[in-house]
Amino acid sequence: MSVSTQDRSPGVTAAAGFRAAGVTAGLKPSGRPDLALVVNDGPAQVGAAVFTTNRVQGAPVKWSRQAVADGVVSAVVMNSGGANVSTGAAGFQDAHSTAERVAAALGLSAGDVVVGSTGLIGERLPREILLGGVDQAAAALSTTGGLDAAVAIMTTDTVPKTAHLTIPGDFGTWTVGGMAKGAGMLAPALATMLCVITTDAVVDAATADRALRTATSRTFDRIDSDGCMSTSDTVVLLASGASGAAPDPEGFLAGVEAVCAQLAQQLVADAEGATHDISITVMGATTEEAAVAVGRAVARSNLFKAAIYGNDPNWGRVLAQVGTVPEDVAPYDPDELDVTINGVQVCKAGAAHESRSKVDLRAGRLVTVLVDLHAGSEVATVWTNDLTHDYVTENSEYST
Amino acid sequence: MSVSTQDRSPGVTAAAGFRAAGVTAGLKPSGRPDLALVVNDGPAQVGAAVFTTNRVQGAPVKWSRQAVADGVVSAVVMNSGGANVSTGAAGFQDAHSTAERVAAALGLSAGDVVVGSTGLIGERLPREILLGGVDQAAAALSTTGGLDAAVAIMTTDTVPKTAHLTIPGDFGTWTVGGMAKGAGMLAPALATMLCVITTDAVVDAATADRALRTATSRTFDRIDSDGCMSTSDTVVLLASGASGAAPDPEGFLAGVEAVCAQLAQQLVADAEGATHDISITVMGATTEEAAVAVGRAVARSNLFKAAIYGNDPNWGRVLAQVGTVPEDVAPYDPDELDVTINGVQVCKAGAAHESRSKVDLRAGRLVTVLVDLHAGSEVATVWTNDLTHDYVTENSEYST
Repeated sequence: MSVSTQDRSPGVTAAAGFRAAGVTAGLKPSGRPDLALVVNDGPAQVGAAVFTTNRVQGAPVKWSRQAVADGVVSAVVMNSGGANVSTGAAGFQDAHSTAERVAAALGLSAGDVVVGSTGLIGERLPREILLGGVDQAAAALSTTGGLDAAVAIMTTDTVPKTAHLTIPGDFGTWTVGGMAKGAGMLAPALATMLCVITTDAVVDAATADRALRTATSRTFDRIDSDGCMSTSDTVVLLASGASGAAPDPEGFLAGVEAVCAQLAQQLVADAEGATHDISITVMGATTEEAAVAVGRAVARSNLFKAAIYGNDPNWGRVLAQVGTVPEDVAPYDPDELDVTINGVQVCKAGAAHESRSKVDLRAGRLVTVLVDLHAGSEVATVWTNDLTHDYVTENSEYST
Repeated sequence: MSVSTQDRSPGVTAAAGFRAAGVTAGLKPSGRPDLALVVNDGPAQVGAAVFTTNRVQGAPVKWSRQAVADGVVSAVVMNSGGANVSTGAAGFQDAHSTAERVAAALGLSAGDVVVGSTGLIGERLPREILLGGVDQAAAALSTTGGLDAAVAIMTTDTVPKTAHLTIPGDFGTWTVGGMAKGAGMLAPALATMLCVITTDAVVDAATADRALRTATSRTFDRIDSDGCMSTSDTVVLLASGASGAAPDPEGFLAGVEAVCAQLAQQLVADAEGATHDISITVMGATTEEAAVAVGRAVARSNLFKAAIYGNDPNWGRVLAQVGTVPEDVAPYDPDELDVTINGVQVCKAGAAHESRSKVDLRAGRLVTVLVDLHAGSEVATVWTNDLTHDYVTENSEYST
């Protein structure tokens, strides 16, 4: 596969104070790039991270939770070609050794190195090949290596995902950038995704942690491609302080959230086998959590997602899913529900309204579903994709 | 489609005191049978029912909840060709009129007639065609009409589902029989399914209600084909007392549960587009509820179900789903999880064990997955199917 990198954001090297590289260690039978390294050259080494909430967690997640606990992260190393999950004590040692190798190559502390891995569960990574890749990547680090790094973490992704934003403020201009991978198993509580966000803003660890948690809860956490929760999801934020600009916490959050939102959108657009991106906006909810719960219920309906694949605006399958959300989570009256698909109000007050034949689902990739609960004033949007023959094909042939 | 009825159980007319019919009212464009009537000729007219827990409910469900509340049910009328859901006040009137017509034709009270409908959501049923069908069915009632009735409630089912059991006891011999439909949208809190269970046992309404709730919770509630909860699920139990045999409550439950289990198995075997039936048995759980929760989590993984379709014993996807169950629901240590697929222990203590290549998924339709949580002594089995190209095809073309 040749990946067009024209006009793409440099991602993690957009902000000052960062170098990155992406190399081919040899972990993938395909011979494609499979190891990425991102280094924070400071002056600050602030770090924060959020991880999968799955109780079955990869060795890299276990390692990285410890590494990030003190709010200091100097480097992130990530590989595709193997998830290093369910690999026992030896697998944890593989993750530990990877961090040690990065530390040795760059003169850092291993305890400040975050590790991420993605690929098949249940198989050991070939340690020497992995460590050789670390050395290669360390030698290739550059202030323009962000896109190479983004390419190296791809699995079934068809395009690398990068984004950045430069923000002028009263105290100076700062930049936030990032890269992400993930094209299947996108689910709440994080998709199977690896994501690195870098910024040259001056920010303390507590503020960075709060901003990252809030930003991910509003972006990556609202993508639900197939309802499956990964064992390896990792989103890391590194702040170098190299811009000298110190935005206030609200401004900092806005920047981080904007880049997370851009990356999340790229993940949706590249979901395995999808032909439609579906945005489900729930309005009239009593709380934002209620709106998210209803949106997520709709996003998880195989029946609705298959109907959209068939260009069928089957609003009955939307209502059926809305009805599965318990009343204590989302109060509403079933006889007041409205559903609008691509601008056509196909259901009003719980019954058929405008003709479903007016809904054109063939016009473009985007399908917008609007559900009005008529119970309050809160709103939220959840994203998913249609369920297609290609989804089944890709996921029935992944490991064999 | 011609349906072979050779060697099939007569279902609802196996027990004494019941007549049934299945006719073509004209609700289906295909011209196939679409209306079933089951009548309890007594001497007793005991009835109980369980319905979908979806908050969006079909008009027939709303009607039938009232009809069954007093524990007396004289007849059940069910149609395919339209679900009568999200059809407003007029739709409720359609259900009410159907019960009135049955009552008029048979000299019963409309308040003792249960109504069930299945098919597309959001469209009115043609009332005159429906009522004409009721007259036709009333005229066709017979003590051997159980199989005709089972055929008339089929939608995408490829075979009618019937079962019965005759049970000798200290106080005489009694029979329980039943019919069911449902080939998609099978999910917990009942599948999209209509089911009628009849028995000639002597039983009071409270015992019948308890037995039906327990039996369905252990059978239909543990089928999870695609995680989608229907708006129309209805399981009705009618007891005529015609055998004169009065089993004790435990014996009565055992008979009802056995027939429900047989029908549930037939539903799994006929799930839309499936090529494998998957039984997920969770053992070593602290409670039965914990075992069910873990089994259901596995049963809902599109990734795992697609892997099985690809004959890939991807145990990593099993572990990833086990990991999504909250600790307060199912306590266990992730490092102690064992997974056995078709008799091969592919995962032991949370890591790879026997080679996955030893697992043969091509040999037959049944796939058995055994998860040992090593946390207690409770066990439960949940059933699902694989996720196939045909599932996507059937559900993307259903209403268009």
